[in-house]
Amino acid sequence: MSTASAGPPVPTAGARTRSAAARRFAESARTTPSLAEFDKLVGRTQENVRTITETVPLDRLHGWHRDRRTGFIAHESGRFFSIEGLQVEKQGPGAGRQSPSAAWGQPIINQPETGILGFLVKEFDGVLHILMQLKAEPGNRNGLQLSPTVQATRSNYTGIHGGLPVPYLEYFQEPAHVIADVRQSEQGSRFLRKRNRNMIVETSDPVPARDGFVWLTLGQLHRLLAVDDLVNMSTRSVLACLPLGDDTDAAADDGFATALARSLAPGGPALHPLVDVLSWITETRTLSELHARTVPLDALTDWAFTGGRIRHRGGKHFEVIGVEVEAVGREVGHWWQPMIRARSTELAALVVTRLRGVLHVLMQLRIEPGLTDTAELAPTVQCTPADCAHLPPEQRPPFLDLVQSARPADIRFDTVLSDEGGRFYHTGSRHLVVETEWQPEPPEFRWLTPGQLEDLAQHSHYLNMQARSVLACLRSRYDGGDR
Amino acid sequence: MSTASAGPPVPTAGARTRSAAARRFAESARTTPSLAEFDKLVGRTQENVRTITETVPLDRLHGWHRDRRTGFIAHESGRFFSIEGLQVEKQGPGAGRQSPSAAWGQPIINQPETGILGFLVKEFDGVLHILMQLKAEPGNRNGLQLSPTVQATRSNYTGIHGGLPVPYLEYFQEPAHVIADVRQSEQGSRFLRKRNRNMIVETSDPVPARDGFVWLTLGQLHRLLAVDDLVNMSTRSVLACLPLGDDTDAAADDGFATALARSLAPGGPALHPLVDVLSWITETRTLSELHARTVPLDALTDWAFTGGRIRHRGGKHFEVIGVEVEAVGREVGHWWQPMIRARSTELAALVVTRLRGVLHVLMQLRIEPGLTDTAELAPTVQCTPADCAHLPPEQRPPFLDLVQSARPADIRFDTVLSDEGGRFYHTGSRHLVVETEWQPEPPEFRWLTPGQLEDLAQHSHYLNMQARSVLACLRSRYDGGDR
Repeated sequence: MSTASAGPPVPTAGARTRSAAARRFAESARTTPSLAEFDKLVGRTQENVRTITETVPLDRLHGWHRDRRTGFIAHESGRFFSIEGLQVEKQGPGAGRQSPSAAWGQPIINQPETGILGFLVKEFDGVLHILMQLKAEPGNRNGLQLSPTVQATRSNYTGIHGGLPVPYLEYFQEPAHVIADVRQSEQGSRFLRKRNRNMIVETSDPVPARDGFVWLTLGQLHRLLAVDDLVNMSTRSVLACLPLGDDTDAAADDGFATALARSLAPGGPALHPLVDVLSWITETRTLSELHARTVPLDALTDWAFTGGRIRHRGGKHFEVIGVEVEAVGREVGHWWQPMIRARSTELAALVVTRLRGVLHVLMQLRIEPGLTDTAELAPTVQCTPADCAHLPPEQRPPFLDLVQSARPADIRFDTVLSDEGGRFYHTGSRHLVVETEWQPEPPEFRWLTPGQLEDLAQHSHYLNMQARSVLACLRSRYDGGDR
Repeated sequence: MSTASAGPPVPTAGARTRSAAARRFAESARTTPSLAEFDKLVGRTQENVRTITETVPLDRLHGWHRDRRTGFIAHESGRFFSIEGLQVEKQGPGAGRQSPSAAWGQPIINQPETGILGFLVKEFDGVLHILMQLKAEPGNRNGLQLSPTVQATRSNYTGIHGGLPVPYLEYFQEPAHVIADVRQSEQGSRFLRKRNRNMIVETSDPVPARDGFVWLTLGQLHRLLAVDDLVNMSTRSVLACLPLGDDTDAAADDGFATALARSLAPGGPALHPLVDVLSWITETRTLSELHARTVPLDALTDWAFTGGRIRHRGGKHFEVIGVEVEAVGREVGHWWQPMIRARSTELAALVVTRLRGVLHVLMQLRIEPGLTDTAELAPTVQCTPADCAHLPPEQRPPFLDLVQSARPADIRFDTVLSDEGGRFYHTGSRHLVVETEWQPEPPEFRWLTPGQLEDLAQHSHYLNMQARSVLACLRSRYDGGDR
């Protein structure tokens, strides 16, 4: 294509390119060999790869200081990330609905660089496998978690850490066959405009799995999603960007998995045409204004720097703590850093329903201060239930009571999964999928199909991190039916 | 859909919704009644709607001042817009390629509000018509231009001007049937992160055309695009977001219009799969860094405030001038404002080719300091030819010589069209479409189909203003073939 001597190239690609990848991942989702070997690998790796993390006061982190000029906590090199204060004011129709107040202050992580979260995939015996990494992160409460092939900040892969080269990075720097490649936001209430590049790249080279890496089918990975705190946040993010689905003429039953499969078929029926969904997003982004500016940490009146950590005076939300880390089998052996620790387990819940046999998900359009483009689609319920327990009913998040009181028979997924262990300490969310009758849509909510959400996930700024994470869980119920 | 009593709604929308709109606009494009009535209307309106614009020194604009603290030119109310200084530094692979230098300063317009550019469309005798407005803007060099039904900044439609209500605005505030609704960037080298909401809304209400408004078919509008300085920039922007096309089995000839029609067919063949195009954009946005910060105007060392205007010391680019405006038949009768005046006519040129009968357009991925997301697709050539005339060959923009030396037989479109007359004074670009043999792609270029570009135009931040403008011109060659 880039040499003139070859003559004019022939156009062949079309809409079918993506469908072909979706069908191949559907086949991989239907393939679930025993996980006995995997369990053994976890046992072996756990002996070699560990981190020992101890909390230490924020003012005793080697290499970190509170910058006198900015009032931020930053690394002395000026690199990695910093903890800053953010003062937020909301205006427009969304103000005051999603948050108790339309103005607030909070600490936030500023890490202005785009990392790579990458799946390397390869066919074995005609079935796509994904190369997963068993990775120990300082914030993990259970040791190892399953991470993408590559999970690297730019600091990692440019060697600022002074560490070893990132394994398999070369496949993402000169990708032979790209299946997905899109920058997606990190949590908009924790990170200031942070995005990571979510990539899925296929290779036909022989690729040996290095120590601590393992090839899994999508079916295996889907099964492991149901294990508490095993599949990490970066993996869930990439999974939501993965094309999945098949034509579903073969499946005629009315089971949940069939409704999901039908909803993933390209161009299938949906309650709202995509243009109406885009218009709703455009309108909210146009009319809602959220002004956020960074301020010194000690200008945050609701937050206190006491006992070597930064806490919310009302005991809500999260704390900023310091940790000292010793790692075995990781790039660097010993370091200090600030981390975020949630005060209690958060909730990312999807309410789903079947409309004429097609699955629909009730998505919320949510304004968050750290998002690059004001608002992104979020789970039906995204909150910290403990912070809402004492609120009067009209201030409680919509559908929180519905999902919390769901009958076991209506629960399609329920697992606690961790936030990213490089920044979050022992912090996780309950990932919950509840099937209900159809519910009327409040103004900030729309019933969308998983297929529409997958289309949107090809582009930046549509699905927030929590949405991608719990959508990956919902999609793990895909079985593609018997063929 | 929003009332519980109606019971669960039925999902019906699918991928076909957009195709249906595209087919209806294809029919409208094939319908071109005589423009004799239109010409009479222009004559009549020209007598009633005029602006008289005189240039005045910037320091004698009533209501405007140079802010002592910021060094910007701003309105005393703090509203409308301001002229600020911008200091830019480029890093990464794009640095130094598209601009002679990787660091520069320039004046820029800051207008942090999202206006509406809206087409109201309606079927008459089974054919979609668009309600166009004959509008006089102070920067127009020829009096009236054809503007969308609604072209309103938020200041306009919230009445900050103290003017009259914006006609037909209500159709866009509570739209019955949305065909397109997407925020698109304005020129990224003139505006700081400015976006407008491009909307196409259909109504079945009886809508009389008010004085100065006219219902046109898409075929008529396409014909008028070939008239110098008639169809304004906002109209061209919305036209590029309009779904257009049909299945083209009927057309078997190998003419240019047929190749264009074939390229607009949904899911048709293309040289690059869309995922590769998205990956290329993701990579450029991830690796290129452009740091832009506002500075006082007098900190711009290459620019001088002399003779009541701000000029580039090298006589290049543009000037910031002041104007005094008297208007007849417009919302407000008399006002002053700063405007941008280009030093010479700019160029927006597309190089196109037919690959196996499918039209492809050579698009450039261009980094501009005012863009919200670093880089957007731009025309093959976007420059000010007069500023490039004395550059050595290796510094001239790629393909400039090719399009400037095109044989008349290879020119598919060639018209000078104006920049937006509310901010730009007697400023326009030559819109040129040149057909060539296939050319190898430099790193910042890709051959894409008009259909792929239309898909991308459903989302923000993919096509820059100049790209949308000249793509509208290319698409005006659509005739859909004989049916």
